[in-house]
Amino acid sequence: KRQGFPEIIYGEGKTAEHILSIMEAIKGKNNNVLVTRITKDKAETIIQQHPEFTYNEGARVLYWLQENQPKEKGKGYIAVVCAGTSDLNVAEEAAITAEVLGCEVRRIYDVGVAGIHRLFDNIEEIQNATASVVVAGMEGALPSVVGGLVSHPVIAVPTSIGYGANFNGLSALLTMLNSCASGISVVNIDNGFGGGYNAALINKLVNKE
Amino acid sequence: KRQGFPEIIYGEGKTAEHILSIMEAIKGKNNNVLVTRITKDKAETIIQQHPEFTYNEGARVLYWLQENQPKEKGKGYIAVVCAGTSDLNVAEEAAITAEVLGCEVRRIYDVGVAGIHRLFDNIEEIQNATASVVVAGMEGALPSVVGGLVSHPVIAVPTSIGYGANFNGLSALLTMLNSCASGISVVNIDNGFGGGYNAALINKLVNKE
Amino acid sequence: KRQGFPEIIYGEGKTAEHILSIMEAIKGKNNNVLVTRITKDKAETIIQQHPEFTYNEGARVLYWLQENQPKEKGKGYIAVVCAGTSDLNVAEEAAITAEVLGCEVRRIYDVGVAGIHRLFDNIEEIQNATASVVVAGMEGALPSVVGGLVSHPVIAVPTSIGYGANFNGLSALLTMLNSCASGISVVNIDNGFGGGYNAALINKLVNKE
Amino acid sequence: KRQGFPEIIYGEGKTAEHILSIMEAIKGKNNNVLVTRITKDKAETIIQQHPEFTYNEGARVLYWLQENQPKEKGKGYIAVVCAGTSDLNVAEEAAITAEVLGCEVRRIYDVGVAGIHRLFDNIEEIQNATASVVVAGMEGALPSVVGGLVSHPVIAVPTSIGYGANFNGLSALLTMLNSCASGISVVNIDNGFGGGYNAALINKLVNKE
Amino acid sequence: KRQGFPEIIYGEGKTAEHILSIMEAIKGKNNNVLVTRITKDKAETIIQQHPEFTYNEGARVLYWLQENQPKEKGKGYIAVVCAGTSDLNVAEEAAITAEVLGCEVRRIYDVGVAGIHRLFDNIEEIQNATASVVVAGMEGALPSVVGGLVSHPVIAVPTSIGYGANFNGLSALLTMLNSCASGISVVNIDNGFGGGYNAALINKLVNKE
Amino acid sequence: KRQGFPEIIYGEGKTAEHILSIMEAIKGKNNNVLVTRITKDKAETIIQQHPEFTYNEGARVLYWLQENQPKEKGKGYIAVVCAGTSDLNVAEEAAITAEVLGCEVRRIYDVGVAGIHRLFDNIEEIQNATASVVVAGMEGALPSVVGGLVSHPVIAVPTSIGYGANFNGLSALLTMLNSCASGISVVNIDNGFGGGYNAALINKLVNKE
Amino acid sequence: KRQGFPEIIYGEGKTAEHILSIMEAIKGKNNNVLVTRITKDKAETIIQQHPEFTYNEGARVLYWLQENQPKEKGKGYIAVVCAGTSDLNVAEEAAITAEVLGCEVRRIYDVGVAGIHRLFDNIEEIQNATASVVVAGMEGALPSVVGGLVSHPVIAVPTSIGYGANFNGLSALLTMLNSCASGISVVNIDNGFGGGYNAALINKLVNKE
Amino acid sequence: KRQGFPEIIYGEGKTAEHILSIMEAIKGKNNNVLVTRITKDKAETIIQQHPEFTYNEGARVLYWLQENQPKEKGKGYIAVVCAGTSDLNVAEEAAITAEVLGCEVRRIYDVGVAGIHRLFDNIEEIQNATASVVVAGMEGALPSVVGGLVSHPVIAVPTSIGYGANFNGLSALLTMLNSCASGISVVNIDNGFGGGYNAALINKLVNKE
Ligand SMILES: Nc1ncnc2c1ncn2[C@@H]1O[C@H](COP(=O)(O)O)[C@@H](O)[C@H]1O
Ligand SMILES: Nc1ncnc2c1ncn2[C@@H]1O[C@H](COP(=O)(O)O)[C@@H](O)[C@H]1O
Ligand SMILES: Nc1ncnc2c1ncn2[C@@H]1O[C@H](COP(=O)(O)O)[C@@H](O)[C@H]1O
Ligand SMILES: Nc1ncnc2c1ncn2[C@@H]1O[C@H](COP(=O)(O)O)[C@@H](O)[C@H]1O
Ligand SMILES: [Mg+2]
Ligand SMILES: [Mg+2]
Ligand SMILES: [Mg+2]
Ligand SMILES: [Mg+2]
Ligand SMILES: [Mg+2]
Ligand SMILES: [Mg+2]
Ligand SMILES: [Mg+2]
Ligand SMILES: [Mg+2]
Repeated sequence: KRQGFPEIIYGEGKTAEHILSIMEAIKGKNNNVLVTRITKDKAETIIQQHPEFTYNEGARVLYWLQENQPKEKGKGYIAVVCAGTSDLNVAEEAAITAEVLGCEVRRIYDVGVAGIHRLFDNIEEIQNATASVVVAGMEGALPSVVGGLVSHPVIAVPTSIGYGANFNGLSALLTMLNSCASGISVVNIDNGFGGGYNAALINKLVNKE
Repeated sequence: KRQGFPEIIYGEGKTAEHILSIMEAIKGKNNNVLVTRITKDKAETIIQQHPEFTYNEGARVLYWLQENQPKEKGKGYIAVVCAGTSDLNVAEEAAITAEVLGCEVRRIYDVGVAGIHRLFDNIEEIQNATASVVVAGMEGALPSVVGGLVSHPVIAVPTSIGYGANFNGLSALLTMLNSCASGISVVNIDNGFGGGYNAALINKLVNKE
Repeated sequence: KRQGFPEIIYGEGKTAEHILSIMEAIKGKNNNVLVTRITKDKAETIIQQHPEFTYNEGARVLYWLQENQPKEKGKGYIAVVCAGTSDLNVAEEAAITAEVLGCEVRRIYDVGVAGIHRLFDNIEEIQNATASVVVAGMEGALPSVVGGLVSHPVIAVPTSIGYGANFNGLSALLTMLNSCASGISVVNIDNGFGGGYNAALINKLVNKE
Repeated sequence: KRQGFPEIIYGEGKTAEHILSIMEAIKGKNNNVLVTRITKDKAETIIQQHPEFTYNEGARVLYWLQENQPKEKGKGYIAVVCAGTSDLNVAEEAAITAEVLGCEVRRIYDVGVAGIHRLFDNIEEIQNATASVVVAGMEGALPSVVGGLVSHPVIAVPTSIGYGANFNGLSALLTMLNSCASGISVVNIDNGFGGGYNAALINKLVNKE
Repeated sequence: KRQGFPEIIYGEGKTAEHILSIMEAIKGKNNNVLVTRITKDKAETIIQQHPEFTYNEGARVLYWLQENQPKEKGKGYIAVVCAGTSDLNVAEEAAITAEVLGCEVRRIYDVGVAGIHRLFDNIEEIQNATASVVVAGMEGALPSVVGGLVSHPVIAVPTSIGYGANFNGLSALLTMLNSCASGISVVNIDNGFGGGYNAALINKLVNKE
Repeated sequence: KRQGFPEIIYGEGKTAEHILSIMEAIKGKNNNVLVTRITKDKAETIIQQHPEFTYNEGARVLYWLQENQPKEKGKGYIAVVCAGTSDLNVAEEAAITAEVLGCEVRRIYDVGVAGIHRLFDNIEEIQNATASVVVAGMEGALPSVVGGLVSHPVIAVPTSIGYGANFNGLSALLTMLNSCASGISVVNIDNGFGGGYNAALINKLVNKE
Repeated sequence: KRQGFPEIIYGEGKTAEHILSIMEAIKGKNNNVLVTRITKDKAETIIQQHPEFTYNEGARVLYWLQENQPKEKGKGYIAVVCAGTSDLNVAEEAAITAEVLGCEVRRIYDVGVAGIHRLFDNIEEIQNATASVVVAGMEGALPSVVGGLVSHPVIAVPTSIGYGANFNGLSALLTMLNSCASGISVVNIDNGFGGGYNAALINKLVNKE
Repeated sequence: KRQGFPEIIYGEGKTAEHILSIMEAIKGKNNNVLVTRITKDKAETIIQQHPEFTYNEGARVLYWLQENQPKEKGKGYIAVVCAGTSDLNVAEEAAITAEVLGCEVRRIYDVGVAGIHRLFDNIEEIQNATASVVVAGMEGALPSVVGGLVSHPVIAVPTSIGYGANFNGLSALLTMLNSCASGISVVNIDNGFGGGYNAALINKLVNKE
């Protein structure tokens, strides 16, 4: 991978040792580093050797945002939107991913379909983003509502939050795939990383000279 | 069935002759009559002998609203809500069912989640209803939004409108069952009859002396 | 939320501290409070500071029924119906929810489809209710039978009780959605709260002046 | 196949010529003959050459009940039970199959879960059978109720009658597999033949000397 | 329940105390007793007070076979058939259930479709049974093969043994429902009790005077 | 809708008359017009009155590309990629949608996973696009391969092409949602419109001053 | 493609003209040609210009077996096995595919699990094959039984023959994937071509010098 | 089993004692032994008595490769191919199985669809194999790509690696069954054993004199 581009490691199923050895290999590249789906235990083992890393337990990501990274901030930002407590971890995974990829992120976390007025109070900040990541569990209706109110690309992230006929996120996933608002595309259930990554790819376009 | 209570016949799989013979049997009871899920062919055969009946082709219902029926209108009405063209037939099945059961019905048919402002223009009329029937296909998010804005019972009716990952209405059904708004209950896919019937049972309560 | 209306908190995924802080915020409103889907551990932490709360372990609800609440009891009651041991917890969640919302509740818990005589022994008490919540797992046939015997709205609550081809409540859910008795609407699997809430919304209508 | 035992031909996917050639091969065996799942067209072609055959269009079976067959009637009979119009064809397939296999059959076709009183009016005739075949579509709750009232084996036959979340009979199938009444076993959706065949095998046991 | 007929208690979700109290209530009836789906812990608690009970850990059944029970053995027996190690526990649940119901049971446990010669070595004993219970996991093909070789009713019991596309027994369940051998009916996944119960109801018929 | 922005009409379930009346209403706005999912019959009726429209039968779209539209071409283009004959119609729906929205589109239609060399022959043209729409049926693996070779956003469109375990596009949909290449988001099965629309929203960003 | 290797065209969704143009392009290569999933209409159009082609209507394949093809026959053959009438078309697709690929094929079409003796009568011919293709619908148990009796690779082909809980071949597919006999691998539902192709690849190995 | 042919024991659900007793029974046959799906605990118990056995913890296999086994190596080898860390355990189960069956195995473990260049670097070694086992989780696209590049039989093994819409391997399984590359057949999810076994059966053919 070329310099300046973040290193991304999928932590699931890798031991701390394995992750550390990958990190050794990329040392000196002066890149941001992101490890996703990593448990607290493994993260702590790694932080003992690399105290410059930050671990977000809810989002299960471990990352290093370098100071001397070229900032792409200034032109365009990404809105990460979710309803509240329950989908917050996936939303944070998306937000941190986009930040590691050099984007400015605005978090709008207190809005949900059942209390739609809070969404309207924040709608302008969402509308002015280059792209938004909309995270929702249970019935997953939020991206449809947001999609109808903005004219930029919306990356919808279904979560597995819910019970019964939620079928571990299937309900929210189907809702988003069937949205009658246009300008919505969807990533895998609980794939906050994918949401942030796609939004960042889009946001980078406005910063191209 | 006691007098004054409408006769309801499930038309699917019954011949015109069979339906006519049931109608013979209930003659003289001075009740409204509703036949659901009946094809145009069969309906026309019956209307030749019973020109007092009306057929709604989209909703596939054949019905007779008697003049001398006790009106329960005046106290309370039912709001039947849907997004537009595609879900209209199921909405009409709900509306006519409730009317045959003696209720006043207000149709709010031009509102959808992707263009939420039209919903807000009509929200007061919905809020003042005793109950509402909210019909939606594709992602089926409308009942969640309505449910968050009203404080009466919402009967959600998923429709089979959509394609691909809609799976013939499964998507809308799951959305409604998982709604994070409270006060929502759900009937079968395309069961406009069930939506209208449940709402009518509820609306009758406010007319009990 | 306006005074006199109960505060409802969805406990799943919230820490005891988070729930306590929400409770702080609503203090002094003189409202009933209901926390659903809350574990024993969290409930006990909260009760140490709020000994006026009651915890029902099976139903996983924590609640505070205030003395000076306006009682809506007297006109109309809700029948909560289930087959026995296994669905009892979900039935209790429904019953307590309706009580917190100010309704009188009659519990009819010893009736099931496989021994239908016990249902008939209690049928009059069910028939005289304003609405009933019928809770059933395994094949979930009880709401169909009850729905054929009463003329008020039935809220059907499927439970995840069963094994094998039950698929965690899918079997009971489909049964209820396909009921050939009319006047039945359905909530999510194990959603006792939804059952109680919908029935309470309906029961309130008979108490409106 | 030994003499005296009926010949059974699965008609689906076979041409009239093919079926006729099988019938040639078994000629002279003095056995009853049953062809299942055969279309009207094919049946009529065959009847032109074999006018002794009877075709039941609804049940899609073509059969020949020989006069000189050993009757097993007299000791024990099979009750074939269904709710009404819609499941009648599958019930007839079951009934005729059992008759071709030499059993006495009693048809109880006007009973359903939504109007349970009609079931109780006929319950004694059902209880006195050696075995019953209970056919039901939509939610498929009838076998559970019957199973709780009789002490003989119940063969439950789900049908594909219904719409929406019925998923072509899946709903009724799951209901029957999950029945909390004991003494129920299940055959494939719309497999009236299987229902009648199993019940006949059971009924034959009481006629063994 | 009338005397002489075994008492059956579904143990799942009941405490040892609850089960003991049911057992108190039926004391003195001189009936066999069967508790299904009961954990080792609960069974041991009960055995301390009722040392006459036997617990089968694999089959998870606790039972009491009384000496002075009327034996129906002598005329007819039930064959319980399975492939080997993995389905043995469900087969035992079936066998013990039938024994508690007063039947003679023959266990044929070393036969499977992948090594079909062992099945042929035992086929006569199976063929001479009044009914057979055929238990199979993974692809669940054994009932089809047995059903083609016997002329008595076969109760097929799918088990959840397997992995991957087995989907917890769905594979075996579908196999059995679609069997092209006739005379097969099916009970729920892992429902050894249902298999034994149905077979016992059938076997009793040959012992009726 | 503001001037200069195309009018998009979802043709499914609308009559030719209905579509014509919508077109009347937007006349004089000088906008491109796109009608999706419209049958040949309806399209021909409309073209008789509006001969300036073009109908693409395979893609089922009817559209009007105005001469005096502000072209956004020149900076950035969209690559629409598919494997060949079978997915071509959905690819065309995507391509025309993006063109109606004012984008330059490059069609790369002869590349597939089973003959990967053709993809490599065209990879540079794909890599230089602002975004790509990758359309695939059957196993739907093409977006994963493309996604690994480009660094712009890929909109993956599963199609319902295939048979058997394809389950009408479910197979391709799941493949795309689970892609281990990053930078891929997914729209509904056969939703070529959604693919083109999302890509166009992205491509517009590079043309913003 | 190199000379001597057959040309294979997937006919589904291609016009006769399209297929003819592909055939033009490969003319003179002296290769066998196979067109799969082609309708009678299209096949007849092509045969008018290429009377040397043969069409098999049931198997829906059109093919040209050249005289001067290098025969690989003599060492090794493929057994194509199925139960009878209903799965015959898929079996023929497999057999013809293998023949076009230069293999000797032995058809064993009258064997099925429900009448297992016919299988045993033919088992030696199956055992002596290099590989076998075992085609089965309904419960799909045949490959398990065959797999237990042979020691060569078995390619299992599930068909969509059946009804109800067959779910268009899902039942047979799952059966085959879960087979407890080893040496079985599976292709898509109704994919006779895939069965024949894989078996031919294997059979060619014994003819390599 | 005949001498020289390995003994294979399915370890799942068997105790260490049970496995040891099977091993006693086959002692002296001078065969390789393979126990699959065996936990570390059980393996260690067995190794204490049979220190000549090797346990692979990731692959969960315990095996004994005898020195004096007839080597079939020299003519033909099997390529076992997977993408990397996550599918490695299933790939090892396949590789060891093939080795126990006497085959030479080449492991190509660092290739995946998202970084396709590594696959091309190793493609010749794969192409020269007699057969390949291609193991893949998540979207499972690797067998399609490999299948398009080789002309020998590919055994595709889906794994349960992934999350969300992966549905425990269903996604990869469907991908492989629907592959548009020919020459691919599929075994159960996570069935590395089946992959290795089928490939070994094929590889043995080139070593037949
Ligand atoms: N569209 C419908 N969907 C579900 N149930 C219906 C429908 N229409 C009528 N029903 C029910 O069917 C009953 C009449 O059934 P039947 O006696 O077969 O005509 C009515 O009382 C309703 O409960
Ligand atoms: N409707 C049916 N559903 C399932 N199996 C059937 C049906 N009708 C007949 N059969 C079975 O098919 C066998 C005859 O099949 P065949 O030889 O193909 O005509 C009979 O012996 C029955 O076991
Ligand atoms: N093929 C399609 N699939 C999904 N949504 C579509 C499609 N075509 C148009 N739409 C959406 O439908 C809207 C128009 O819907 P309508 O007002 O019902 O004609 C457009 O603005 C799009 O957002
Ligand atoms: N991991 C596995 N998955 C599927 N089948 C297996 C597996 N391991 C072994 N087998 C099969 O199980 C047989 C041994 O079964 P058993 O006699 O129960 O130990 C072997 O001959 C294989 O056919
Ligand atoms: Mg938008
Ligand atoms: Mg509300
Ligand atoms: Mg009722
Ligand atoms: Mg009973
Ligand atoms: Mg039989
Ligand atoms: Mg990329
Ligand atoms: Mg074998
Ligand atoms: Mg190949």
